[in-house]
This record gives sequence, C-alpha cells and structure tokens, in this order.
Amino acid sequence: METIMTPIPPEQTLKVAILVCPGFVPMDVFGAHTVFGISPNVEIHLVGKSTDELMGVPTWPTRATTSFADCPDVDVLVVGAIPHEVVDDDEVLEFFKAKAASAPAVITVCGGAFLAGAAGLLDGRRATTNFQMLDALADVGAIPIVGGRIVIDGKFVSAGPVTGSFEAAFAVLERLRGIDVAKMAELTIEYDPRPPYGVGTPELAGPEMTKASIEAYGPLATAIREHARRAFLRHRTAASA
Amino acid sequence: METIMTPIPPEQTLKVAILVCPGFVPMDVFGAHTVFGISPNVEIHLVGKSTDELMGVPTWPTRATTSFADCPDVDVLVVGAIPHEVVDDDEVLEFFKAKAASAPAVITVCGGAFLAGAAGLLDGRRATTNFQMLDALADVGAIPIVGGRIVIDGKFVSAGPVTGSFEAAFAVLERLRGIDVAKMAELTIEYDPRPPYGVGTPELAGPEMTKASIEAYGPLATAIREHARRAFLRHRTAASA
Repeated sequence: METIMTPIPPEQTLKVAILVCPGFVPMDVFGAHTVFGISPNVEIHLVGKSTDELMGVPTWPTRATTSFADCPDVDVLVVGAIPHEVVDDDEVLEFFKAKAASAPAVITVCGGAFLAGAAGLLDGRRATTNFQMLDALADVGAIPIVGGRIVIDGKFVSAGPVTGSFEAAFAVLERLRGIDVAKMAELTIEYDPRPPYGVGTPELAGPEMTKASIEAYGPLATAIREHARRAFLRHRTAASA
Repeated sequence: METIMTPIPPEQTLKVAILVCPGFVPMDVFGAHTVFGISPNVEIHLVGKSTDELMGVPTWPTRATTSFADCPDVDVLVVGAIPHEVVDDDEVLEFFKAKAASAPAVITVCGGAFLAGAAGLLDGRRATTNFQMLDALADVGAIPIVGGRIVIDGKFVSAGPVTGSFEAAFAVLERLRGIDVAKMAELTIEYDPRPPYGVGTPELAGPEMTKASIEAYGPLATAIREHARRAFLRHRTAASA
C-alpha cells in the first residue's frame, strides 16, 4: 500500500528534499522552499548527486546540502524543471523513485513532472505541468489535466510553474501539519497576490500570446519530451522484465 | 536630478543586481529573480562583499556571482530581508547607496526596505514592507503605507514579502522594457495565483492571527529596527556634516 499524506505530529521534524542539479530551474522550487521554509519545525535538504557547487538557470549558484547517498527518508520530495539529460539519468531516476516510495508527498512543478514521469511514477495518474508542455505528459503514461491549478493524485501533487509551487506546498503542508499551520504560512508570507495584467493563463492571455509562449519553449519542450519518453520506456521495460 | 525609470532599448542588456549576504532571506528576492530571469536579454548578478559561499535563511547555500568591487552600474538593484547587523554595515550601505544612485530602479522587499532606509534613501519617501514591521519605517524617515501592495516613489519600489517581490519586478519591467514584455513574463510564469485560504493579509486574517504573526516576528523586528535607526542617524549626520 502506498505511503500517502497523513498528519505528522508538530514535534516531529518535517523533512523536505528539493532536487538540485546543474541547470535546474530555481523559480520552480522557490515557492515550495518558501512555504515549507516559513513553517515551524521543518528541515530542508537541497539534494543532489554531490555537494559540489552547481548553477541554477538563470544565474543562481547553489549546491546540494545533502548528497543522494546521505539523504534520509523525507516527508516531502520536490522537483522543478531540470535539463533534459537529467530527466534521462538513471542515477537521478533511481534516487527519485526510492525517495518517492517512502515519502508521503511528492511535489512536481513545471517540467519536474517529467522526472517523475520518466521514473514511471505518473503512469495512469492525473497530473499537470506548465501549459507549454502539458500534452507531453501523456508520453509518460500520465493523464494531462488542463487548467493551471494543482492536481493531486494520491501522494503526487503536480503544478504549473512558479505560483503552482506555492500552492502545491500549501496543499501538502495542510495535509501533513493541519490547516492552521498552512493558514499561518499564507499570512506570514502575505500570499495575496495581485496579478498586474491579468494574462497569467492561456485562457486569459488569448491565442496569440499563448502561441508565442509555446513557440518560445518549443526546442526545450521537445528535448525534455524525448528524453522523458525514452527513460519511461526503459524503466517500464525494466519493471516488467 | 535623479535617474528614474525610463525605457531601455530591447537590444541593451538589462542588468539586475540582487544583494546576497550570510543570512539573507531568499524568499524575498525569488520573485524578482523569476520575473527578470524569465525575460529576454537580462543579466542577473548576485552581489555581495565577496564571492565566497554563504547561507541563505532557511537553508539555501549560494554565493555572490559578482563582488561589490566588480559590480557594474546596474538598471535594477534588489534587496530583500537581511540580518540586522548587515542593515548597520557601512561597507554594505556605501555599496547600496552608490549603486542606487546610478540605477534607474531600486526594489526593496520585506525587511530590505530597512537597508535602503538605513542608507537614508527613503527619507521623506512613501514606502512599505511586511506588515509585521511597517511602523518601523518611520524610524528611518519614510512614510509607511499600509495595504500590502507595492509602493512606488520615484525610482524606489517597495513591497511586502514574497509575492510583492514578483509584483515590484513586474512594475519595474513594465517601465524599463514596456508592457508587452511584462505581460509575456506574466503569462510565461503563469502568474495567476489562487490563494488557498484567503488569509494572506492582516485584514483578511483578522486580529488574532495577525497578532500571533507580529509576535512571532517581534525579536527580529526589534533588532532590525534598532540597527536601521542607528545607521540612518549616522548616515544623516555624515551627510549634513
């Protein structure tokens, strides 16, 4: 039976692991880092193959605080967009699968869904990602959900980019720590955004802007899609062998 | 005459400097990093006393990409909350004052307003910060504006925490690059947040939650207030000597 989200006592430290690698996209994990980071008794690990310095995109040098080898079992596993070669990297995929198996909650933001998908974890599950790449989720066996909100399927909480990262984290925090803790986090970070232009979804922005945005992501999306599909098929074959 | 926000041609690289130091609060600058980072022809510098590794709070190791000594004149200078001792550090204050003088736009988020304030830059200006510390802005000569939205006074754009960081950046991006670029950034990051609990301001949360949040920030707020005031008076004395 899968480990799913149930309350963790306040006195028990909530352990959160956020995947980092060269070329990771900090903006996708900032929201989860913020919501968990502002909450009581939370331990955040940035996890990576090693603790050597690496560069996030755009321009954000950081390093893992905890290597894969040293990473404890965690309560929440978080991944945002990562380069296509990492989506197809067995060392990363095996780590992610192992930690996802024991974690009560897994958050994917934006292209991060393709790592979970490549590992076979979204096979048959409802999931979402940024609109520019949503249809590609079907390539890794997932059921793509349109609409920009977070999608919860069992322990897997997937979100579109940036603010979805906050909202996925609120949803998990509420389930693991209770709604009062989650509400206090919302107040403390004053999460009451006012989008200035009202074009923050494809529906709001209209077809012309949406097409331009999808085209800008084209090469990136194609590469991630191909690598995720390849890894997914390989892992599925291995699982059924 | 002060340099203020006017359009910069698209072919000219927009230079953004984000202040980092040991104990800086990444969540306050994530929004600005995201909005500028997603936009075309932007160069982001994380600036600090040195390029040695430092730890953001909570748990985010990073380092400056550019030391104060090597920092070029920039178009946008960004600061979020920093520890009280940094608010009162003359090397940081002198750097910030010098770069703010030439920059067309200065963004302060949350406690970052107290660095600008300590440097005397908000004297007589309207400004805001996180609600837990808003009244203390008067100690550095600023006119505190209630309400959680961003406040623009000349080149200074101040904001409350987290999502204010996005919105201050949108306001600056719109003025420096035009509204079409700013709108595309809003779509690309899908900035259409849905606060899950509707308690993201003191007004929405009500007096009991608000009091608890202010009390939780008490010691931190007092320390920043005292150090900002001390630095402000010292810099004002120096300016009038």
